[in-house]
Amino acid sequence: MKALVGDVVDAEKVLRNHAVLVEGKEIMAVVPAEKVREFGPDEVYGGEGFFIIPGLINAHTHVAMTKFRGLGEDMPTEEWLGKIIWPMELEWTAREIRKWARIGVMETLMNGSTTINDHYFFAEEIANEAEKIGIRAFVGQTVMDLVEFPHADPEEGLKFFKRWQGRSELINPTLAPHATNTVSLELMREISELSDEANARIHIHLAQSRAEVEEVKERYDLRPVEYLKQAGTLNERLIGIHGVYLTDEEIKTLASAGSTLVHCPTSNVKLEGRTINLQRVLKAGVNVGLGSDSPNPVGILDMFLEIRKSALFANLLEEKAHVLSAREVFKLATAGGARALGIKAGLIREGYLADLLLINARKPWFKPRENPYSLIVYSARGSDVEMTVVNGEPVYIRGTFPRIGKALEDV
Amino acid sequence: MKALVGDVVDAEKVLRNHAVLVEGKEIMAVVPAEKVREFGPDEVYGGEGFFIIPGLINAHTHVAMTKFRGLGEDMPTEEWLGKIIWPMELEWTAREIRKWARIGVMETLMNGSTTINDHYFFAEEIANEAEKIGIRAFVGQTVMDLVEFPHADPEEGLKFFKRWQGRSELINPTLAPHATNTVSLELMREISELSDEANARIHIHLAQSRAEVEEVKERYDLRPVEYLKQAGTLNERLIGIHGVYLTDEEIKTLASAGSTLVHCPTSNVKLEGRTINLQRVLKAGVNVGLGSDSPNPVGILDMFLEIRKSALFANLLEEKAHVLSAREVFKLATAGGARALGIKAGLIREGYLADLLLINARKPWFKPRENPYSLIVYSARGSDVEMTVVNGEPVYIRGTFPRIGKALEDV
Repeated sequence: MKALVGDVVDAEKVLRNHAVLVEGKEIMAVVPAEKVREFGPDEVYGGEGFFIIPGLINAHTHVAMTKFRGLGEDMPTEEWLGKIIWPMELEWTAREIRKWARIGVMETLMNGSTTINDHYFFAEEIANEAEKIGIRAFVGQTVMDLVEFPHADPEEGLKFFKRWQGRSELINPTLAPHATNTVSLELMREISELSDEANARIHIHLAQSRAEVEEVKERYDLRPVEYLKQAGTLNERLIGIHGVYLTDEEIKTLASAGSTLVHCPTSNVKLEGRTINLQRVLKAGVNVGLGSDSPNPVGILDMFLEIRKSALFANLLEEKAHVLSAREVFKLATAGGARALGIKAGLIREGYLADLLLINARKPWFKPRENPYSLIVYSARGSDVEMTVVNGEPVYIRGTFPRIGKALEDV
Repeated sequence: MKALVGDVVDAEKVLRNHAVLVEGKEIMAVVPAEKVREFGPDEVYGGEGFFIIPGLINAHTHVAMTKFRGLGEDMPTEEWLGKIIWPMELEWTAREIRKWARIGVMETLMNGSTTINDHYFFAEEIANEAEKIGIRAFVGQTVMDLVEFPHADPEEGLKFFKRWQGRSELINPTLAPHATNTVSLELMREISELSDEANARIHIHLAQSRAEVEEVKERYDLRPVEYLKQAGTLNERLIGIHGVYLTDEEIKTLASAGSTLVHCPTSNVKLEGRTINLQRVLKAGVNVGLGSDSPNPVGILDMFLEIRKSALFANLLEEKAHVLSAREVFKLATAGGARALGIKAGLIREGYLADLLLINARKPWFKPRENPYSLIVYSARGSDVEMTVVNGEPVYIRGTFPRIGKALEDV
């Protein structure tokens, strides 16, 4: 049994000076710190000046795209896609994918995400790397049928999905149609049926760009959410990404269906100069997760920074201060992401998965200690993570990755 | 002589694998790394995988307000001022100011700012702490005459200014009228005359809130910049902060005068839900610096994050991608701030002040290394700073403050 000691904070409560007891892959109990010795833990981590929070859930990634970081920065979005991203994506090999997925996963764990929801080509390689390093990963093989692309064959995507079903505690295969404008209604229907049979998540880019919305309109005379409805995709297993150009009507439809919208603030603002109005989506009752999206164009995969930006952008869009509280935005990257993925995580409770962060708050920017939500949202960065625990196992501890026997210098 | 080795990056150039040679307080030369031994340096820092960049300039701070961090988070701005900030400010003692200014200055150095431009009560204590720890500091004693406030007496502000003139290499006293609505035109005229005589910077909050603009209008029938013009304040020594509610006409006037506007992105968005349109201000030709403002409401004092947010907010305001390049926003926090303060810094050039950062980029989020501007703006955080050099002296090295013999644990 392990004990993590400190101020325990999740989106529902703050327990000062408590211990989270971890047995196997689960949280066994949360007890006052002075009682920890009674339980005879094998290891005790943290102590005074630490925070223990749920591992952050990065609900939309393309971890292998670390390879492209910084390339084509400052290019108009269309040119960046045409000159940088697509040509480089044609050149992928399994070996290169493994190398860069490894970098992306290590970066992600170091900066406090315990779960990723990844959408990319060569999903087999990504799933293997993620499992090795020890992150919880929902992995989908990107598929399209309306665009010719060598690595996006629907048959292959299906094979990947079936191969990984029920195979691993950490890796959950998802169905990953690329976007509403690159997948035919027919294929989308097949994917939805499979999702129903297998009780699997569908992970899809949704209303990310004007071009996407226009193309769906032209092809089917439908809005993106109407297209999903016609395909039978609208339920609590749908994870739509971005939603920049959704109408209020579409947002309402997502809410009634119990679907999730994943907000990727930095990505949207870099590529589109816009984001969804987060407050409006939350008021409509949609479940919201947060995502970093790809390291190109976003930069570092640090979900603490995405949480902060989701709050600030919400203010700017409303031209109002204090639109969302620190606690509300913290919830999106923890409980919100967990609900999106259907895992018992995102809160620190008995019986929940032990996906946890130990934050070293013995630093100037965590003084004074009065308001934990404010400190976590507006002071913390991924670099304050001392230890990342996934499925009960410390997979990152201060510059080292015990599961794979690597140090930061080897990355 | 010291040598800092790595990829040298400032807003004008990238020199791969070079060494910055530092003699006394200045940069002596920048040479290819392989030549460094010819100069026989006493110490060599960095090496492969490091960046050397100009120290960041935090052009608007209230470092002692670290004491208030997180307090009143999520309160409406007026309530936060009335219930949290003002009552606590009445209670300040010199001893408490020293304590919290020390925390703020250490946090600032650790996160890569080599210069602050501070505006607060008890400036004497702040100047003393800043000098001890070794940051370059422009320090102004906040003064007002239209609002009763015990620590803001104009006579005391003047005394502080005179006491510190020409006294210290690191500390530069400034004149710090509070804002255009809390200082009478008469006092503002006196301050402007003193600024002319002493060639001193004037540091003032400018068009930060609607209330400020309305009060100046009511009292003098003037817009904030017209008020400054009538007081004789408009020249290259004026550093106006925020400018959220400036008109295009006022922005033009600031540009013609050669004055500086300091943009504090996070602060503005948290308190007002708005910022100036940065692109418009830059197009008008105004010199722009960046500032963090106070740790309440901003959180951590990490100028890397403010640089990033200035670019993202500029996109959102224009509803356009790629409004400002990574290089342009990097320039604001380096060369822009140096011009604002009139110091030969912000670029890595022979004869310039050796205010430098050594960034440890041997980390996943700095891979690949192709685009240094993108990596510095979108991947780097203050926690990547390995060493902070001010006036030629390493005042922060990996968790320690050599000048005061303190480690991070003592903060």
